[in-house]
Amino acid sequence: MKGFESQIGYLYKDKALLSLALTHSSYANESKKNKSHNERLEFLGDSVLSIIVSKYLFQNYPDMPEGELSKTRAALVCEKSLAGFAREIGLGSMLLLGRGEDQNGGRNRDSILADAFEALIASMYLDGGISPAEKFVLGFIKKQMKNKQFVSSFTDYKTELQEIIQQNKEEKVEYVLVEESGPAHDKFFCVEVHLNSNVIGRGEGKSKKIAEQMAAKEALELMGE
Amino acid sequence: MKGFESQIGYLYKDKALLSLALTHSSYANESKKNKSHNERLEFLGDSVLSIIVSKYLFQNYPDMPEGELSKTRAALVCEKSLAGFAREIGLGSMLLLGRGEDQNGGRNRDSILADAFEALIASMYLDGGISPAEKFVLGFIKKQMKNKQFVSSFTDYKTELQEIIQQNKEEKVEYVLVEESGPAHDKFFCVEVHLNSNVIGRGEGKSKKIAEQMAAKEALELMGE
Repeated sequence: MKGFESQIGYLYKDKALLSLALTHSSYANESKKNKSHNERLEFLGDSVLSIIVSKYLFQNYPDMPEGELSKTRAALVCEKSLAGFAREIGLGSMLLLGRGEDQNGGRNRDSILADAFEALIASMYLDGGISPAEKFVLGFIKKQMKNKQFVSSFTDYKTELQEIIQQNKEEKVEYVLVEESGPAHDKFFCVEVHLNSNVIGRGEGKSKKIAEQMAAKEALELMGE
Repeated sequence: MKGFESQIGYLYKDKALLSLALTHSSYANESKKNKSHNERLEFLGDSVLSIIVSKYLFQNYPDMPEGELSKTRAALVCEKSLAGFAREIGLGSMLLLGRGEDQNGGRNRDSILADAFEALIASMYLDGGISPAEKFVLGFIKKQMKNKQFVSSFTDYKTELQEIIQQNKEEKVEYVLVEESGPAHDKFFCVEVHLNSNVIGRGEGKSKKIAEQMAAKEALELMGE
């Protein structure tokens, strides 16, 4: 428990709150003494997470319109994302799980990890207020927002570029693959976006789709969008 | 503006935040000078509202399981509910709307009112922190949670009673209408719930459905559930 507290960078006043956050319902159901588990904390943690992420995006992206704010928030707090954060702190190995759930790989299941991550946030919030929860969550969020692959996964720069260029019907956009290399598990792609045969952007990535998005992003930036 | 501030019980340090919360996108779109509107505030307000309601339910209903907490929160913050709160403070008449939207009854449309209500919460939060926003929101929430018709609208006591009684296959539950009175626009219903011909609960309401739910609720209470 001590090791985990130093891993998450927060020392609980009330250790029982941390224990509760780590207790899955399958464990509580098998227990004869203690039937409490982390689902109510998960309910609260969902909202704590949401206000931390919303406030951060609202204040740090003053020009981002509402639709994009919502899309970004949804991507940041989706199950897959939260399960990834949970893995970074080794949350799976700390969980109290029922025997069956444990044997069926519950310790590494996205849904269980994401729920426990939310419960953990709520337990910090109840123990120490919004500040420690905010510090903990923003560590992940800031890193994620610097991750180009993550941002490009839900931001559709290609559509945006298309919409701007379509205002002039003569113009034609093309994506040209200029490099594809690396072994199957670690491919590298480089794509250029052409406007009437002129290169207006260039992008790289681990998939053709990401490289295209990155190329469109560069074109938008060069056009001042 | 002054009158509205006293209506909502909060005095803004930064009046521009209140103005922004009251500005619908249709107004901003028609304006030549100022293109800002309340949609980004609405994004933030949604999360502020959520944590206030979640924390309140979590702390004041310590025995409510996660599923019911989620259902209750969803009912409290749904569009219809928020539009109702907005009408209580006369929010519609304060909105800055585009001409077309105004002529089409936008001032009384649920979606516009609910969004503006969320924006208003965010503006309080940004102006004065979580406390004034919490005080404002909980005024509505506490009243709503005392409203039996509201609570019964999303709590399914009948199903709950059925599930408990089905554990014993011999038992049979019946709902008996014992009174129906009043004019069409203000009906009154009274229903008894019978278990093997014994009355185990009695409920009243403005519809048969609500009266049945209330009867099931009383039965559950008498059974100690």
